[in-house]
Amino acid sequence: MALIVQKYGGSSVADSEKIKSVARRIARAKDEGNQLVVVVSAMGDTTDELIRMAQQVSEQPDERELDMLLSTGELISSTLLVMALESLGYKAVSLTGGQAGIQTDSSYSQARILRVDPQRILAELEKGNIVIVAGFQGVTQDMDITTLGRGGSDTTAVALAASLNAEVCQIYTDVEGVYTADPRLVSEATKLKEIGYEEMLELASYGAKILHPRAVELGGLYDMPILVASSFSDSPGTLICKEASMEVRNKARGIAQDTNVAKITVINVPDHPGIAAAIFEPLAKANISVDTIVQNASIENITDLTFTVARSDLVKAMSIVEPVIKSIGAKRCVTDSTLAKVSIVGTGMQNTPGYAARMFRALYEQGINIQLITTSEIRITCIIAEDRVKDAVQALHKAFELEIA
Amino acid sequence: MALIVQKYGGSSVADSEKIKSVARRIARAKDEGNQLVVVVSAMGDTTDELIRMAQQVSEQPDERELDMLLSTGELISSTLLVMALESLGYKAVSLTGGQAGIQTDSSYSQARILRVDPQRILAELEKGNIVIVAGFQGVTQDMDITTLGRGGSDTTAVALAASLNAEVCQIYTDVEGVYTADPRLVSEATKLKEIGYEEMLELASYGAKILHPRAVELGGLYDMPILVASSFSDSPGTLICKEASMEVRNKARGIAQDTNVAKITVINVPDHPGIAAAIFEPLAKANISVDTIVQNASIENITDLTFTVARSDLVKAMSIVEPVIKSIGAKRCVTDSTLAKVSIVGTGMQNTPGYAARMFRALYEQGINIQLITTSEIRITCIIAEDRVKDAVQALHKAFELEIA
Repeated sequence: MALIVQKYGGSSVADSEKIKSVARRIARAKDEGNQLVVVVSAMGDTTDELIRMAQQVSEQPDERELDMLLSTGELISSTLLVMALESLGYKAVSLTGGQAGIQTDSSYSQARILRVDPQRILAELEKGNIVIVAGFQGVTQDMDITTLGRGGSDTTAVALAASLNAEVCQIYTDVEGVYTADPRLVSEATKLKEIGYEEMLELASYGAKILHPRAVELGGLYDMPILVASSFSDSPGTLICKEASMEVRNKARGIAQDTNVAKITVINVPDHPGIAAAIFEPLAKANISVDTIVQNASIENITDLTFTVARSDLVKAMSIVEPVIKSIGAKRCVTDSTLAKVSIVGTGMQNTPGYAARMFRALYEQGINIQLITTSEIRITCIIAEDRVKDAVQALHKAFELEIA
Repeated sequence: MALIVQKYGGSSVADSEKIKSVARRIARAKDEGNQLVVVVSAMGDTTDELIRMAQQVSEQPDERELDMLLSTGELISSTLLVMALESLGYKAVSLTGGQAGIQTDSSYSQARILRVDPQRILAELEKGNIVIVAGFQGVTQDMDITTLGRGGSDTTAVALAASLNAEVCQIYTDVEGVYTADPRLVSEATKLKEIGYEEMLELASYGAKILHPRAVELGGLYDMPILVASSFSDSPGTLICKEASMEVRNKARGIAQDTNVAKITVINVPDHPGIAAAIFEPLAKANISVDTIVQNASIENITDLTFTVARSDLVKAMSIVEPVIKSIGAKRCVTDSTLAKVSIVGTGMQNTPGYAARMFRALYEQGINIQLITTSEIRITCIIAEDRVKDAVQALHKAFELEIA
């Protein structure tokens, strides 16, 4: 008898018919002889609706209160899912994050899981129950309710799977799996059977948006295989696991793109120690993630410094950078928010010559200008004009022969 | 500095404007230098909406799951109320029933409070917080969420007031207080300044429907004064307390009516031991409350047995009684669902001659026929035709000079 953790997202339980359909899926997995722990998100746009209610009574809702408010969304979906299972004749029980033993720190709205005490879940499984756990939430040591922030329910599922030593953590969502490229851009994009944790991380961070990086990281840390599959079909999905990287070593695995990119260039920066800190420390304090940073070679102690931020952070970032520019004696600052990133991702890529060159040639042949280049162990990213993203992704998909992945 | 417990019902927090208005009321009480614990019901028809959702996925929702589902209604209203208070500049914190230390048995949907551990509430008051508690709910020893059933939030408020040794428990609702009669029937009805627990119990059970009997009983048990007042006006309301009965001893305090009455008469019952049990035990098992029971004097060991049930229970009651009739050898059964109760209520009434006679005369003078009579220590009830209720209540109000209460 295998213990399986499943997770269903908000769109999979958006109304009573969808809840009943998810119940039938769970029932099928139970009939196959598995023990089941199922993590569920709030129904459809419940969370947005609750936030709207909060905004009607307060311009800046207290985070502790907002977390308790938002946690009700998952309580509603999890109890309804139990009722639907019971009306199919299956024994089931719903647990709040707290009841499920998910203990977090007290960083409201973005709490981190400190530990999972799976005692109650194990007792319910022992009784033959299917256990439905409200995702996205936990409790502090003082029994205050917290939410886990973005990707919260995915993280709940992987954390439970790890602590229960489950066979697999199955994430059911509204996509069929992980593709070699965004199928909306590349019609030849193929679904990957397997992908490594690190590869998935690079893909997800760079726009694949299938599974939150936090959940992938946790999966990698505990070596918990994560299946990503559609909750609306029976196609097999993509398994995120450790083994994948060995089998497919030295191969590009997928193309990712991200259009939420803005570039800031500080011109004529005096090139002496402390300048970078003067610019990036206040941005970090304002919780603005700086991505690619490039500094041109210094000529006569004057340099240009370029970096990218999320486009949605651009206005805030500029309000912080502009006063700094004057204080450090730089000349001025220019921005460009018409850019995008395209990346090729694959384990061991950087150790293998030729990948970068192949990427640059493919873009060159399409007449696409590369503005910035940045690389990691398993990723090469080019920043290009946003209106060339589709051409770039298609050209790269072809150049790396991903249609026969 | 006085510690006050307030309770606001669902209609008082039905939308964001009403929540803000309640917040301003609470703020005013805080400004007067009080420590405040506020119990809140679910917004408007949230509970009905949640029940409707449950019914869409299950014909007979599991009670444990339904309780957890329904408990979210009060979490939503209590967190929103905190946000509204904070945006007025007041420190506040919301607590679930469990966090507030309300421990219950595990009778889902109608849990009884076993004890209140007010440690967390006291700690929050100590920090200067206004404490908002989600009404209607508690937790079992196993940390499962329960709801308290009808009158749950009132009961939460009185239980907290008792365990915190509060100065008063203020129940804010959509009526102005307790009247000598239903103001919709008697235009001269006057609001009572005070009323005793037992008097209130008789009034409430007999249709006043202002405060659930369970909360009144608990108040009486712990001698906790309960103020019932409007959440929409500043009029002073009615105080339910022990002293009232001393001051106003031997006086009719109010008239109550109840039109949810049906009469069942079993004709030609053999008059021997065990017959009453044979009829009433199966009714009790089916959870049908039997009210007035009258048995005519036996003539030749044959008697008629009459009793009343809530009109809404009549069909169910008859389905239980009819098979019994045959088995005990009674002749047949007749029902009447066009009846109503009118009662006069006042402490020590039964020990004072003349009240019953005065009541019967007042009804007689209106040509109102009395079908059944039943009395308690502090109440005399007549069962009459429903279409004469208004006349009866007006006549009794006048006969007992309640317009000058």
